[in-house]
Amino acid sequence: MQEPLLMNLENNVYLDGDTLIIIDRRRLPLEIVPVVCHSYEDVARAIEDMAVQGAGDIAVTAGYGLYLTALRAEGDNERNLELLRRAALRLRNTRPTGFHLAALLNNIMDRVEGAETPFHQVILTYLMDVLARQRKISEDTGKHGETLLESGDTILTHCFAGAGLLYMLYYAKTNGKDIKVICTETRPYLQGARLTAWSVSRLGIETTLITDNMAAHCMSRNMISKVFTAADRIAMDGTVANKVGTLQLAILADHYHIPFYILGYGGPDRRTLKGDGIPIEERNPGEVLEFRGMPISGPDVGAYYPAFDLTPPELITAVVTKDGVISIP
Amino acid sequence: MQEPLLMNLENNVYLDGDTLIIIDRRRLPLEIVPVVCHSYEDVARAIEDMAVQGAGDIAVTAGYGLYLTALRAEGDNERNLELLRRAALRLRNTRPTGFHLAALLNNIMDRVEGAETPFHQVILTYLMDVLARQRKISEDTGKHGETLLESGDTILTHCFAGAGLLYMLYYAKTNGKDIKVICTETRPYLQGARLTAWSVSRLGIETTLITDNMAAHCMSRNMISKVFTAADRIAMDGTVANKVGTLQLAILADHYHIPFYILGYGGPDRRTLKGDGIPIEERNPGEVLEFRGMPISGPDVGAYYPAFDLTPPELITAVVTKDGVISIP
Repeated sequence: MQEPLLMNLENNVYLDGDTLIIIDRRRLPLEIVPVVCHSYEDVARAIEDMAVQGAGDIAVTAGYGLYLTALRAEGDNERNLELLRRAALRLRNTRPTGFHLAALLNNIMDRVEGAETPFHQVILTYLMDVLARQRKISEDTGKHGETLLESGDTILTHCFAGAGLLYMLYYAKTNGKDIKVICTETRPYLQGARLTAWSVSRLGIETTLITDNMAAHCMSRNMISKVFTAADRIAMDGTVANKVGTLQLAILADHYHIPFYILGYGGPDRRTLKGDGIPIEERNPGEVLEFRGMPISGPDVGAYYPAFDLTPPELITAVVTKDGVISIP
Repeated sequence: MQEPLLMNLENNVYLDGDTLIIIDRRRLPLEIVPVVCHSYEDVARAIEDMAVQGAGDIAVTAGYGLYLTALRAEGDNERNLELLRRAALRLRNTRPTGFHLAALLNNIMDRVEGAETPFHQVILTYLMDVLARQRKISEDTGKHGETLLESGDTILTHCFAGAGLLYMLYYAKTNGKDIKVICTETRPYLQGARLTAWSVSRLGIETTLITDNMAAHCMSRNMISKVFTAADRIAMDGTVANKVGTLQLAILADHYHIPFYILGYGGPDRRTLKGDGIPIEERNPGEVLEFRGMPISGPDVGAYYPAFDLTPPELITAVVTKDGVISIP
C-alpha cells in the first residue's frame, strides 16, 4: 500500500521557496505535472482551469494566492492591504458558488487588517492551521464513515469524494474489513477514473471503473451494497449540492433500496437555509463537446454543462461528518 | 437540411465492385473513413471491432460477408456451400447475442441450399429485399413515433436509436412541429455524441449534448418532455435489452413522471419469452479504461463493461413498432 497523493493536500499543493506548486489534477494519474504560481493571478487561473479541484482544496489554494501576494508586496501597510483586497476579490470570483472559498478569503482578510506581524506570516500561520484542521476533519469523517462499512461490502462512489473517502477505506482495511470499490468515471473531467479509482487502488483495495451510464445495471445485479459521495454544499434543509450525477445515483439507489451516504465533512452550511437557494454553476459547454481537446460531435451540436446538481434530503440515508453519522429524518 | 448519412444503410454500407465498403462508425462524424472488405473474415473483423453498429445493420453487413464469399467462390456447388457454411459460422460468432444476425444468416443459408441460380445472385437479391424492408420498417416506426410528439417537446435519447428516430424527427419537422433533442453522449463509444447528435443536427433540429450523468438534473429542471431509446431485443414479457444506460434513464423518467418510449421497429422477439433469458454481452473492460486509445485511470484499476442492460416493462410507457404504438399494460 502507498499513501495516495490526494490523501493529504500538503502532497499536491505546497510552497517551494517563494512559489506555489500545484500538481495539475487534470493530468493525474498519467503525469505528475507541477503548475508553478508566482502571483495571485497565476493561482486564480489555476483554479479557473481546474488544475485544483474540490471546495476545501480550492479555498486553501486561493489562500496561498494571498500569501504569495503578501510575500512580494513592497509598499506600506495601507498599500499592501489594498493590493490584498484586490487579490482576494479576483480569487473569490474564480468560483462564484464556492462558499468555502469566500469564507477562507474573508477570514484571512479579517486577520490581516490591523495585524502587527508581517502579513505573509499572518497568512501562512492561518493556512497551516486550516490545513491541520482540514486533515483532522477528513480523518474524523473517515473514522465515522468506516463504522457504516461491513466486510464484504462493495461501495459505489462518484467523482472524487475527498480525503475522507480514502481515510474511511484505509481504516476499514486496517480493521480487517474486506471492501471493494466501484467508481463512476465522472465525465466530462473523469475525476472518478483519474483521481478516485487511482487513489483507491493505491490503498491496495480492489477497484473497478464503470462509465456513468452503468450504475443502474450494477445495482440491478446486486453488485453494490452502499453508495458514498461528497457534498459541495449541504443546505440546512438537508439538500446536497454535489458534482452533477449525484442526484441520479441517489434516485437509483432509492429505487433499489441501497443506502446512500454523503461524506459531509464539516456538515451543513448554516448560511444556506434551503436547497433551492444554491446556484448551479454552468461551465463552458465546449468542455462537453470535446475530450481532452478532441471534438466528439458534429459542428452544429450544442451542449449543456451544469457542474452540480441538487439531491433532496428524502433520497439521502445519512450524512457523515467529522462529528458522526447524522440520519436524515 | 441534409439527409443524415445514417438515415439509410445504403449510404454507409455498400458494394463497390467486388468489395464491400463500410464507413467506419467509430470515426464518425469527424472523419469519413471507409473500411474496405474483400472477404468474410474482413467483414467479421469489422463487426467485432464495431466499425458497424446496431443489430439490423450488423446483420445486413454480415450478409454482405456471405455475398463476397459466394462471389469469389470457385469450387463446385458442394464445396462452395461448405465454404459458405464456414463463413456463416464465423460471422455469427462475431456477436453471440445478436439474434437478428443469426436469423439473417440462417435465412441466407436456407435460400442458398438447393438454389439453381448462382449463389451470389441469390444472396444479393435477398439482401436488397431485406434493405428495402428495413427501410420501410424505419419509416413506419418513425411515422408512428411522430404521433407521440407535440410541438414544444424536448426529447431525450440515448445511444443511436436507429433510422426510425431520424424519420420520426424528420416527419415532425415536416408537420411543422417544433421539437428539440437532448442526446446523452453514451460512453464508452460515444454513439450519442458522434452518431445521434450529429445526425439530428443535420436535420436542422436544435440538438444539445450532455454527459451520461446529467440526465436526472435535466429532468429535475423540467427540460425533458419525453424519452426515446431503441431496443436491441424485446422479450415477450416486455423486457427491453438495450445499450447500457437505458435502464437508468427509464428509472429516472419514472421518478419524474416523464413518458419513456421504446422504438421497437419489428416488435418483440417471439423466441425470447422472458427478459431474464437474454444474455448480457460483456465486452473487453479495457475499453472502459481508455478513451480513444488514451488510458484514463491508474495501472492497478480494473473495469467492467456490460454492453447492454435490461429494462423491465413496468418502466416503459409504450413501444413504437412498424405497426403502431403498443402501450405496456
